[in-house]
Amino acid sequence: MTTNNFANTMTRWKATIEYDGSLFCGWQRQAHAFSVQEALEDSLLKLSGENIVVHAAGRTDAGVHAAGQVVHFDLLKPLKAHNIREAVNFYLKPNKAAITEIEPAAATFHARFDALKRHYKYFILNRRAPPALLAGKVWHVPQILNITPMQEAAQILIGKHDFSTFRAADCQANSPIRTLERLSISCENDQICFEVTAKSFLYHQVRNMVGTLAQVGKNKWSVKDFEAAFLAANRTKGGPTAPPQGLYFWKVDYNETV
Amino acid sequence: MTTNNFANTMTRWKATIEYDGSLFCGWQRQAHAFSVQEALEDSLLKLSGENIVVHAAGRTDAGVHAAGQVVHFDLLKPLKAHNIREAVNFYLKPNKAAITEIEPAAATFHARFDALKRHYKYFILNRRAPPALLAGKVWHVPQILNITPMQEAAQILIGKHDFSTFRAADCQANSPIRTLERLSISCENDQICFEVTAKSFLYHQVRNMVGTLAQVGKNKWSVKDFEAAFLAANRTKGGPTAPPQGLYFWKVDYNETV
Repeated sequence: MTTNNFANTMTRWKATIEYDGSLFCGWQRQAHAFSVQEALEDSLLKLSGENIVVHAAGRTDAGVHAAGQVVHFDLLKPLKAHNIREAVNFYLKPNKAAITEIEPAAATFHARFDALKRHYKYFILNRRAPPALLAGKVWHVPQILNITPMQEAAQILIGKHDFSTFRAADCQANSPIRTLERLSISCENDQICFEVTAKSFLYHQVRNMVGTLAQVGKNKWSVKDFEAAFLAANRTKGGPTAPPQGLYFWKVDYNETV
Repeated sequence: MTTNNFANTMTRWKATIEYDGSLFCGWQRQAHAFSVQEALEDSLLKLSGENIVVHAAGRTDAGVHAAGQVVHFDLLKPLKAHNIREAVNFYLKPNKAAITEIEPAAATFHARFDALKRHYKYFILNRRAPPALLAGKVWHVPQILNITPMQEAAQILIGKHDFSTFRAADCQANSPIRTLERLSISCENDQICFEVTAKSFLYHQVRNMVGTLAQVGKNKWSVKDFEAAFLAANRTKGGPTAPPQGLYFWKVDYNETV
């Protein structure tokens, strides 16, 4: 789309995106379903007349939400940050997606490759009644979860390990080794929140960790069972995958913002 | 519906209800629109075969949410609390409403007349970008609101006063005098939360107080302007009505629970 003739007028933009994942087939553009990427690229086309590709810090699956997905894209048309945000948010609004922040970035900035840390949150509504106000925004677990052993089990995962037990079969990463920096579990009233941080994750890693920790919370597995499953480094030893609607791509850290 | 023949087997139930107000025309049954009351009465009819009337602690308008609406109703059929909750929640689920708690109550218990205090919360999303994750769940105010003068103005309303300035034209209360116990305003990131408590409120009182306080937050009105409007005891001197989707009927206090 861009040619050398225009290279000196091109601006690379870094934007933070919030979206309700229940309305999309996920981040990535697909032929027969509506993605966040398509919604964003279509909005930018309407604004600029330019057919561009938007690159994201991380792909999210259908149903997975984002509070702070980060993307980058290039525009030839000279526009102000404020005007891009206002116009794109106008087009995006019916789809429950919005640019919350936008700024010009270095020409070499890459939302995915420059990400230093990715932060996810996962929310469980732990009560008998199904969610009404939080329908589609939490995983509803009607059995009471025991927090203390879940917290104890979570600590086993901190550090550099082979995470094969929590790796989806169709994960395309070269290695199952990842370094988990944080996995904290807190409880407020009937909501349980998992806060998870790493440089990068395997496909479905967060949902598989949460689903397996829930087995511990339900007292179906002991902490020792959990540890043995983890050390087996084998997906068939892990617990079920927690559903997408409890997961939020929360924040991405970069070395410098511009 | 109930006759003396069955009076000795009738049970009065007290239930706490959560609902997403955006899917309903409000609490009260209407001929040509779907209300929370109708959803609840229909579900109880399916369960018990009894055509009953459900009485609520407070009516909510279309779009207004409830985290802790309280209702009472009478059933002849002998049922366990757990079974009523499970069955009704099964029927209610597509409507984003749920019974969160239920217990048998004294035969004289009345959800509306026995209420000692009603607690509301009102949420504003105060940022430039429209809500994506909280669409339909907050009032979006794109201009930055100044919290300190809003908090100062709110204190003027505490106590027993004539609240005519915040009373909707079609309010059916006998008197405009109410005693406001609490109106606290807090801020967390880009969310502003109003916590409001009184024994009872005039029609649209909370939304009119929030809408008028927002004029102070936008620096359109000084605290003195706000006080003058309040003391005028005249709705035409008040600010606009805040929209329904930011309002939550949060909790009702009773003297004794059973």
